[in-house]
Amino acid sequence: MKSAHSVGLGTREKLVEAAITLMRRSGLSGAGINEIVRESGAPKGSVYYFFPNGKQQIVKEGLEQYSERVVTFIDSALSRKRKPGEKVKALFNAFAERIELGEFRHSCPVGTVCLDLDLELEGLRSIIAASFDRYLKAIEAHFPFRDRRRAESFAGLLLTAIEGAYIRGRADRSSKPFREAGAWLAELVEQAET
Amino acid sequence: MKSAHSVGLGTREKLVEAAITLMRRSGLSGAGINEIVRESGAPKGSVYYFFPNGKQQIVKEGLEQYSERVVTFIDSALSRKRKPGEKVKALFNAFAERIELGEFRHSCPVGTVCLDLDLELEGLRSIIAASFDRYLKAIEAHFPFRDRRRAESFAGLLLTAIEGAYIRGRADRSSKPFREAGAWLAELVEQAET
Repeated sequence: MKSAHSVGLGTREKLVEAAITLMRRSGLSGAGINEIVRESGAPKGSVYYFFPNGKQQIVKEGLEQYSERVVTFIDSALSRKRKPGEKVKALFNAFAERIELGEFRHSCPVGTVCLDLDLELEGLRSIIAASFDRYLKAIEAHFPFRDRRRAESFAGLLLTAIEGAYIRGRADRSSKPFREAGAWLAELVEQAET
Repeated sequence: MKSAHSVGLGTREKLVEAAITLMRRSGLSGAGINEIVRESGAPKGSVYYFFPNGKQQIVKEGLEQYSERVVTFIDSALSRKRKPGEKVKALFNAFAERIELGEFRHSCPVGTVCLDLDLELEGLRSIIAASFDRYLKAIEAHFPFRDRRRAESFAGLLLTAIEGAYIRGRADRSSKPFREAGAWLAELVEQAET
């Protein structure tokens, strides 16, 4: 089954998009070479032509591309409002809509793959840590805390809540974990000393 | 490799413990029948003797048993302190120690398996949702909010942060996401109207 994203894409891009779709759904366990080929509609031989290092190479490229889109998404959501509390709500509402659009079956592939890591996959961990670091910086830039460590840790709390809300949202097929976190964390930042 | 837990256990219990260990590490992707047998040290034939429905049956039983232990763990951590803010910190510090003990390679199997779900595994989702519901109730019982919906959503926020902190903690090999969430959410509950 082709995804809407893949219309008009070249074979290489189709393979990466397919890997992203599958990782968002079930992490590494669903993103085997055969599944990626089937999801992409690309000929099987094309995988090793474009990705001589196989699955790990597609997975890394998928995570890197996807995390750039998330940074844009975060930045756009946080730019909609001016006050810190409203920014927090806008961010969590944007993610709530995102999980609804994916019918509660898709989440952040950086999170899904992170929970599939074992010792053999240590090389992927640095990609994941770097992606989260980019998300953190994108969030932090929008909150005017005077104390830099406090700014970092508040951004950390928001990212923690986003990744956790994806887990609970998928379990309950609900965007409520995002909305309730958004409401509480808006209350927190409104009362906090910035 | 046998885990310390499996000493003195019967074969059936060893298989369930092995499944739990593997799911905590890498969700369903690492918990195939062969891996469970290897981790448990049990003879291969014993799997279908004790679990005629195979992997899904061991996985369900592992999640159910594990989530009971987490409820006890949550209850014990929250019982250590009296004030809401101190309770929050005690809870997140307890989870911080837990991820440190597991050398940042183990997390909540309910979370890891949740992010491996696809349509074929819909049957597992209800086990996962029920486990999270038990965690929520265990948390909620310790916070004296007058408004019941507010109590539920605050417990929801704490659970969201715990699951998200596991993801970020594993990515960064650090317990900081738990400790920073604990500090912020303690600040929140101290200021909130309960």
